[in-house]
Amino acid sequence: MTVTGITTPAGFVAAAGTAGIKPSGKPDMALVVNRGPKYVAAAVTTRNKVIAAPVKITRSAVKDHELKAVLYNSGNANACNGAQGDADAQALVAAYSAQLGIPANTMAMCSTGIIGEPLPVEKMLAVSDELIDGLGDHGNRAAEAILTTDTSRKQTMIKGEGYTIGGMAKGVGMIAPSMATMLVCVTTDADIDSATAQATLSRVVEQTFNRLDVDGSTSTNDTVILLANGASGVTPDAHTFEKDLLGACEDLLYQLQADAEGVTKRIAITVTGARADDEALRAARTIGRDTLTKCALFGSDPNWGRVLAAVGMADAEMNPDDISVYFNEHAVCLHSAGTDDAREVDLSGEDIAVVVDLGTGGNGQATVYTTDLSHAYVEINSAYST
Amino acid sequence: MTVTGITTPAGFVAAAGTAGIKPSGKPDMALVVNRGPKYVAAAVTTRNKVIAAPVKITRSAVKDHELKAVLYNSGNANACNGAQGDADAQALVAAYSAQLGIPANTMAMCSTGIIGEPLPVEKMLAVSDELIDGLGDHGNRAAEAILTTDTSRKQTMIKGEGYTIGGMAKGVGMIAPSMATMLVCVTTDADIDSATAQATLSRVVEQTFNRLDVDGSTSTNDTVILLANGASGVTPDAHTFEKDLLGACEDLLYQLQADAEGVTKRIAITVTGARADDEALRAARTIGRDTLTKCALFGSDPNWGRVLAAVGMADAEMNPDDISVYFNEHAVCLHSAGTDDAREVDLSGEDIAVVVDLGTGGNGQATVYTTDLSHAYVEINSAYST
Repeated sequence: MTVTGITTPAGFVAAAGTAGIKPSGKPDMALVVNRGPKYVAAAVTTRNKVIAAPVKITRSAVKDHELKAVLYNSGNANACNGAQGDADAQALVAAYSAQLGIPANTMAMCSTGIIGEPLPVEKMLAVSDELIDGLGDHGNRAAEAILTTDTSRKQTMIKGEGYTIGGMAKGVGMIAPSMATMLVCVTTDADIDSATAQATLSRVVEQTFNRLDVDGSTSTNDTVILLANGASGVTPDAHTFEKDLLGACEDLLYQLQADAEGVTKRIAITVTGARADDEALRAARTIGRDTLTKCALFGSDPNWGRVLAAVGMADAEMNPDDISVYFNEHAVCLHSAGTDDAREVDLSGEDIAVVVDLGTGGNGQATVYTTDLSHAYVEINSAYST
Repeated sequence: MTVTGITTPAGFVAAAGTAGIKPSGKPDMALVVNRGPKYVAAAVTTRNKVIAAPVKITRSAVKDHELKAVLYNSGNANACNGAQGDADAQALVAAYSAQLGIPANTMAMCSTGIIGEPLPVEKMLAVSDELIDGLGDHGNRAAEAILTTDTSRKQTMIKGEGYTIGGMAKGVGMIAPSMATMLVCVTTDADIDSATAQATLSRVVEQTFNRLDVDGSTSTNDTVILLANGASGVTPDAHTFEKDLLGACEDLLYQLQADAEGVTKRIAITVTGARADDEALRAARTIGRDTLTKCALFGSDPNWGRVLAAVGMADAEMNPDDISVYFNEHAVCLHSAGTDDAREVDLSGEDIAVVVDLGTGGNGQATVYTTDLSHAYVEINSAYST
């Protein structure tokens, strides 16, 4: 079976088009439609206080846990555009939903691209016939059309017991010249109720996308949407469905991590020996955001002192005299002092596993995923927006 | 008057020497001695939970608010060296204080350099005669000997009403291959009591060094020491002394900021319109640590959307629809929407002032100092420690 991502599950169609939002002339709009029979939906959106206009639309639309379509555009985030930004997003949703013959409040919208530039609404309306007439098994094209500085499209497909989960994602990096976003759409033909959909999605996002931290920046547009139509006629038990959804989201997570801007290393940071899981998570995040650690790993430098200096600032209980650090399972620091062969560990590969034991004797643990801090990251993100 | 920093105030002498800790063969040890008549001392040390051995010595010695000498070394932080690191630091302080004829618990110690390498104690003891015999008006040499990757020594001198304040500093950047530290020594011949000394120093550090954030990393060794001997016979009023100490520390702060690793821009971020000063400070820190904003400013890119996206994650009340941003006093965003001429602001200079109004209508405000994120920063901090 060819992966077509979001259109692999029964009852979902998609289309992509080029409205001309991106100067590159690449596809920049996508439409995802759920043909039913059910229209269960759940969403998790950015925690940023500054939110883009499409996020307001999506939050409002998903309140009733029902969505029939999602409109995507790339190249313009429609964030920080004031009242005009809200009006523009509403106009697009009104026009597209009317043409699809569905209520406006069953359509979500996701935008990604430059912040603070007016949305070219006319251009985006001009391709509505093309998008709607073109709806079909085009998950691949939709996954392509939501990209910004991504170098490859990100899709997943999980075969469950009698049902299927498909997904697409873009991000996490930055767009030149402004902030891009992490957008994720997951579809399934499993028959699940809305309460299960939202609760499961929230837990899975917490375990996956919320643990990926490229640069500590949370965008104005981040949105993860789950659509479930029951077309398979199969109602999985909640535990099995959660396991499969987790699999799909983990697969997308790894693709996002691998394609993060300027990435040369994929880094998994696991903290163990914490008093509780949430303390381990805070400690792992602190290390994952430390630019000094990230620079050292870019240079394949087994500089464990930076890891200790970073974790020492974490809001987590630790035993400062009994912290251990492992790089790729090689002990570089035991009981807060370097091992004799610490400098011999090989960090030249693309994947680096960092494990830090806080030495409290507790069982708390957590893993976060990050990347190195490279010249390319600085290059990409210092480009002129003018 | 030639600036000799810490030896400008009456009654302070210093010396520097080369123990051979640094592979470069540059001076790497300094001794600062207070000749009295009083020996008032105060200190502010790192908030990191992982602390270097010399920090433990300094905290213990300064507990009684009296110090007669401070021993400095660069090239080795003596951090994460376990019990041996503590023993090494104690041995050095015991030997130097005995030779000076002062109680061991009136000597502080500050180290800066690589983490996790044993201190070369024998070499450091071998230069004790040279250091002690060489004590004199050598603030300049001491300021030179505490440097690591700093490109220039950092000193200050403030003439008060009948008294003088002198100072030296090193940092904030990183040393190849490991974390350096911010070390500051401030001397004064003003006659102040120990309670005033500690309270004033703590407030001034909060307003100066604690507002400088190059990369969000707090080292295992950061230490600011104030020594006051009353040799001038003048007791300034507390307010005047605080103003003068603030002036000295601000001067050192600007020198640290200007010499931070890889710096091409000095950035002051001021947040206004917050509900309270502490909320403004949290918001300013969040912006100052945002790598995307720092990359944009490296590129002289007036990318105000990143500032909004960053501040939106701050733990501070704001009005998301009424945030304003100014670059070098040029309004680039008003009421959370871009101005027509936002892209025309000139950010090509070395100093950039960013002002963000949170729009709460409150009077809270605060400024933090940071730098851009440049290729040179990545280059310096990705060097092999092997």
